[in-house]
Amino acid sequence: MKIIELKETITASNDRDAAVLRAELKEKGTLLVNLMASPGAGKTTLLERTIRDLKDEMNIAVMEADVDSDVDAVRIEKIGAKAVQAHTDGMCHMDAGMTRRALEGLGDEPFDLVVLENVGNLICPAEFDTGAGKCVMLLSVPEGDDKPLKYPLMFSVSDVLIITKTDVAPYFDFDFDACIARAKKLNPNITIFKVSAKTGEGFEEWEAWLKSAVKNWKN
Amino acid sequence: MKIIELKETITASNDRDAAVLRAELKEKGTLLVNLMASPGAGKTTLLERTIRDLKDEMNIAVMEADVDSDVDAVRIEKIGAKAVQAHTDGMCHMDAGMTRRALEGLGDEPFDLVVLENVGNLICPAEFDTGAGKCVMLLSVPEGDDKPLKYPLMFSVSDVLIITKTDVAPYFDFDFDACIARAKKLNPNITIFKVSAKTGEGFEEWEAWLKSAVKNWKN
Repeated sequence: MKIIELKETITASNDRDAAVLRAELKEKGTLLVNLMASPGAGKTTLLERTIRDLKDEMNIAVMEADVDSDVDAVRIEKIGAKAVQAHTDGMCHMDAGMTRRALEGLGDEPFDLVVLENVGNLICPAEFDTGAGKCVMLLSVPEGDDKPLKYPLMFSVSDVLIITKTDVAPYFDFDFDACIARAKKLNPNITIFKVSAKTGEGFEEWEAWLKSAVKNWKN
Repeated sequence: MKIIELKETITASNDRDAAVLRAELKEKGTLLVNLMASPGAGKTTLLERTIRDLKDEMNIAVMEADVDSDVDAVRIEKIGAKAVQAHTDGMCHMDAGMTRRALEGLGDEPFDLVVLENVGNLICPAEFDTGAGKCVMLLSVPEGDDKPLKYPLMFSVSDVLIITKTDVAPYFDFDFDACIARAKKLNPNITIFKVSAKTGEGFEEWEAWLKSAVKNWKN
């Protein structure tokens, strides 16, 4: 498994770099999904189950971005998807130039879907367009339903909000209706799923959305 | 309750600004604790219980730092401690200059303990000395025991690690021994507590440490 050491690229041109990268990926028919969340919200666990369910239908790769370690890329490789581990040189987010370098690490194989698992952080990754076709964020039940109030930008820039770890909802005071209303107030177009990787709740709906997004990206 | 709108200060002199602020607070006998964690790790909930238990023994104030909202400062005021809400103008951390401005918002009253509840983020706050006498980080059980591998700097700069939400440990695969070994490998001097704000587990030990730290700061 490849580990790629990155440096932040010049941010002045980030929006342009991101638009160029997105256009190139569209041309290739590769949907890049930028997956964002707090540390420990369940990004890798969601990917493990999603890849297991979809890998016979599409060619999937994952770019794991972390300040350090390669534990997530090792987990993804174990379930049979191609993965690279990107180290961000201490940076708290990925930008378009870093994403391009990580994509190069995946080689020339054509992928239908590449997921960038961004650094665990509810703030900074929301500020940088990576060139992704879709932005998907996770919020886990243990984090609490007030997070849209405190981290509004992340909810505003995401196409999809997946509320994870619903199996432990009985042990936490998480008001789903309040959370969803807060997210929709920031972003009326956001699509919301509730999932549990333990029980499988909600995966059918999330994966149907993802398959449709991959298909639409190719048209 | 006061809301203070902040801008990032010049970081080149941040270490010096932090040292000056720390010396001033030492002179006044005020211990500033920089409380750091991911979003939703339980910082405000820990503070609520700690303040309830200790407010008759010492004069405590809290500075809540968030990108937006005032929900945390409202919670702290409800239990009878002085609180200010600092808005970071989108910034993902507090620096020494921002901390000084937030402290000014607390007024001239002498405090034994001021807690800065930093922005929810396991990366950026670890990079900026705020002038605090002690750095305390939380890691919640639902986040997972691998976090020291992925966010090493936060564990390296903290004097204390509090593992929170231990009451839900039966519902998560969290290896306490592995987590503690990983944290100690990064920072052999780190003091570790395991707490549950729901059951009260571990609060006696944490509060004994805090009382001792406040007392030592005055000597």
